[in-house]
Amino acid sequence: MASDSRTNAGFDDLNVVRKMHTFIQPDERVFVILCSGSLSLSQSVINLVRASFDAGEGIAQANSMYEAAREVGQAIRQVSDLDRAALERDSYNFNVHLLLGGQVRGEAPRSFLIYPQGNPLSSTEDSPFLQLGEYKYGRPILDRGIVYDSTSLKSAAKYALLSFDATMRSNVTVGPPIEIILYRKDSFQLENYRRLMAGDQELETIHSLWERYLRNAVEDLPILTFGPHPAYEKQPALL
Amino acid sequence: MASDSRTNAGFDDLNVVRKMHTFIQPDERVFVILCSGSLSLSQSVINLVRASFDAGEGIAQANSMYEAAREVGQAIRQVSDLDRAALERDSYNFNVHLLLGGQVRGEAPRSFLIYPQGNPLSSTEDSPFLQLGEYKYGRPILDRGIVYDSTSLKSAAKYALLSFDATMRSNVTVGPPIEIILYRKDSFQLENYRRLMAGDQELETIHSLWERYLRNAVEDLPILTFGPHPAYEKQPALL
Repeated sequence: MASDSRTNAGFDDLNVVRKMHTFIQPDERVFVILCSGSLSLSQSVINLVRASFDAGEGIAQANSMYEAAREVGQAIRQVSDLDRAALERDSYNFNVHLLLGGQVRGEAPRSFLIYPQGNPLSSTEDSPFLQLGEYKYGRPILDRGIVYDSTSLKSAAKYALLSFDATMRSNVTVGPPIEIILYRKDSFQLENYRRLMAGDQELETIHSLWERYLRNAVEDLPILTFGPHPAYEKQPALL
Repeated sequence: MASDSRTNAGFDDLNVVRKMHTFIQPDERVFVILCSGSLSLSQSVINLVRASFDAGEGIAQANSMYEAAREVGQAIRQVSDLDRAALERDSYNFNVHLLLGGQVRGEAPRSFLIYPQGNPLSSTEDSPFLQLGEYKYGRPILDRGIVYDSTSLKSAAKYALLSFDATMRSNVTVGPPIEIILYRKDSFQLENYRRLMAGDQELETIHSLWERYLRNAVEDLPILTFGPHPAYEKQPALL
């Protein structure tokens, strides 16, 4: 699970905020929730989820990741009841998307995307990763690299970081710090966490090595062959 | 200049169409126009531009690339006068974006993006490439690789192809054939053209080599170091 920390209310109002939230019952269950969309809405959802978790209810009692995803979806619907009408009256969308990953003892780890309507979508063997928010810039590297059951955790961490690196290079609405959690099956704890600030030495090294590797790889590709343009324009039917 | 050939009117209505149009006066001027947005609108614009070009007017008389871009913008405004009201009555946007590249004798080659409103935007030394349409997936590789005045034409062709390859991998609305034209300064002809069909042997080779290079490069990157998660959630103020 990886998230950036930039939030904006217009281009002249950028702020840093954590978008990663964790919930642990040692040896029993671990959840990580990532947020995108309206920060006001996702904060409200997380507050509801945490209050019920701390009271031993909601995701603290879920018997499966699917049930946990449904509990999170219920929290979104509660916030929808509170805020949607007021937002829509001023032409704002009710926009909050969450990513839930983790494990409940008794089943394998799973991950879900939860929509603003509260309904969940699971990752699958053929679609082994889920993305939130400004996802397009960072998607090709994941499409090329991530393979269910064969990509290692350490490699997955690199792909996640490269996906964010590509997005941050091209889009100002995504920015550091980058938080990454690797969860190892059946560990029920979060022992592999990293928060990478802007200018982090490892981040800089990976960024510059990656750019060099990419350029070298492009140079190593065969050169395309070209020929004269056939001037299709002489044939109007082909327009 | 590079373009794909997929056009769609909804996911169940995909077609193949050329989006690259060329205009040549040997030894005097060369123009290449790429289209995105509504195919009906871009066809109308190209028809107007070609009719005036064939009559020795419009871009056939422009004294600079800027003037040519303005002529193309005028054609967009003519089509706007014809179609905008009818489209907007049925809640369609007047959506047509064009990319104009080429050279008029007496100045250097230039490229412009021309908006649906008809106004032009030039590429610059700091922003040496322009994109149209579904641009986000294919942008990071261009951001990383293309450098004004130092990227060779042959390398630029590879980057353009890789940009389309990334986009086609992730998005079904972009598809082959891919057309690429390399224009060499002061040549005033189109001697380096290629149309790559789906399954083209060179395209397949570059695609699979590129995926292998990327995966190897990821493996070669240093492994990030991780530590225990600090459980910020104990500190509500940090939410």
